[in-house]
Amino acid sequence: MALALITGGSRSGKSAFAQQRAEALAAPRLFVATCPRIDPEMDGRILRHQQERQGKGWQTAEEPLRLAEVLCCRPDEETVLIDCLTLWISNLMHEAEQQGGALDEEHVSALTKELCQTASRRRGQVILVSNEVGLGIVPDNPAARRFRDLAGRCNQTAAAAADEVFLVCCGIPLRLK
Amino acid sequence: MALALITGGSRSGKSAFAQQRAEALAAPRLFVATCPRIDPEMDGRILRHQQERQGKGWQTAEEPLRLAEVLCCRPDEETVLIDCLTLWISNLMHEAEQQGGALDEEHVSALTKELCQTASRRRGQVILVSNEVGLGIVPDNPAARRFRDLAGRCNQTAAAAADEVFLVCCGIPLRLK
Amino acid sequence: MALALITGGSRSGKSAFAQQRAEALAAPRLFVATCPRIDPEMDGRILRHQQERQGKGWQTAEEPLRLAEVLCCRPDEETVLIDCLTLWISNLMHEAEQQGGALDEEHVSALTKELCQTASRRRGQVILVSNEVGLGIVPDNPAARRFRDLAGRCNQTAAAAADEVFLVCCGIPLRLK
Repeated sequence: MALALITGGSRSGKSAFAQQRAEALAAPRLFVATCPRIDPEMDGRILRHQQERQGKGWQTAEEPLRLAEVLCCRPDEETVLIDCLTLWISNLMHEAEQQGGALDEEHVSALTKELCQTASRRRGQVILVSNEVGLGIVPDNPAARRFRDLAGRCNQTAAAAADEVFLVCCGIPLRLK
Repeated sequence: MALALITGGSRSGKSAFAQQRAEALAAPRLFVATCPRIDPEMDGRILRHQQERQGKGWQTAEEPLRLAEVLCCRPDEETVLIDCLTLWISNLMHEAEQQGGALDEEHVSALTKELCQTASRRRGQVILVSNEVGLGIVPDNPAARRFRDLAGRCNQTAAAAADEVFLVCCGIPLRLK
Repeated sequence: MALALITGGSRSGKSAFAQQRAEALAAPRLFVATCPRIDPEMDGRILRHQQERQGKGWQTAEEPLRLAEVLCCRPDEETVLIDCLTLWISNLMHEAEQQGGALDEEHVSALTKELCQTASRRRGQVILVSNEVGLGIVPDNPAARRFRDLAGRCNQTAAAAADEVFLVCCGIPLRLK
């Protein structure tokens, strides 16, 4: 029914704000974690976020790549929080590279649109979290520049489809749409 | 008559928003590209942007350095879009280095003021696009830190002179002034 | 009595805006510089900022680490400007490392709360300046990632305690709270 995008920098409070909003909406709630378990630093972040959701009516699905499929396969939860689109793009980039290809902006745009359309067809609300990564110095590394372009494209596409868009800064949400 | 500054991160949608605004204003329109043709990655970006302007009443001028001069030499176009100031600063920095000198903030400020005054004397509207590059981690590289300072100084100077200032995030313009 | 947080990117105009606001408030005024004197680049920045405050009723205290103590020891100034929290976090990180430990988010949160409570107990206004460093590409360097997390946590904690929060972009303040 309704789609929200919550974006912000690293440690801006975007995930906490998204979780708060989701907990004000109907249960049962599904948390879709796009973060792959690849190193102890990531594991620590995952664990801390899990603890923050404990006992608040959340189910968790870990899915680094097929987000639209998760939304289709799990029709029963009233509220879905996907955290975050930017790691999803990073995962899709790595998958494409491992297959000898490269992810381009058109593909990112198409996948993001598909995700948003699937989300909009659900009964309840879907909240997407994403990262802003394009406001620093141009990275030296070409792969980092490509990632920045793809993440920005994903954000633009999701924001165009969303009913509400927030930029979180210092823990404070600024409504953009 | 009127001067607008449109800023945002990389792939934030700032150029598309600027182009859209310009296309709602009077033709003929001049697009001033500050991007030097130096590598295939840049060429690809230039080509894609050119295709997006095709058939919409645009003339293009490529000028990496002398922006105020372009505004003086081309009085006939009603609407001018300069994309972008941040590459202009980068080009000026390289020019100064090649001449054995260094660009400082006072010089950037003076050049930006001169540009804005020249723009304000035109009949039609001038839209300036710039990049926000100062919201990441402090770069290790001293040249990148200097560039960040110069680009920020240019943005502040242009914003002070502009009648309208927008920050674009996820394709959504946020009016600052 | 009142606590303000002013944040923004590098060269966004946040320090100038903070100084302007402070100069509209009651004198005598105390400027607390957290910047350690470690290299000529920093010395240049410090010197320029000092010159901008000259003759405007400012006292200066240089304190890289014990900010709450400065607020306690200097009860007489009506207005206090602390510039900036992000360097303070960086200084605390280095201090912890030199002692063989590591600063964590809980500690940053506790120290920031203590600072804000001490500030709120003063008669006059305290203005805190901080940097936004989390809106670029994830840094390769683990120490830079940790710093980004700690700086973000400090900003969130200070914003939650502050009566007013501004994000400065291109020299223009955007009120968040």
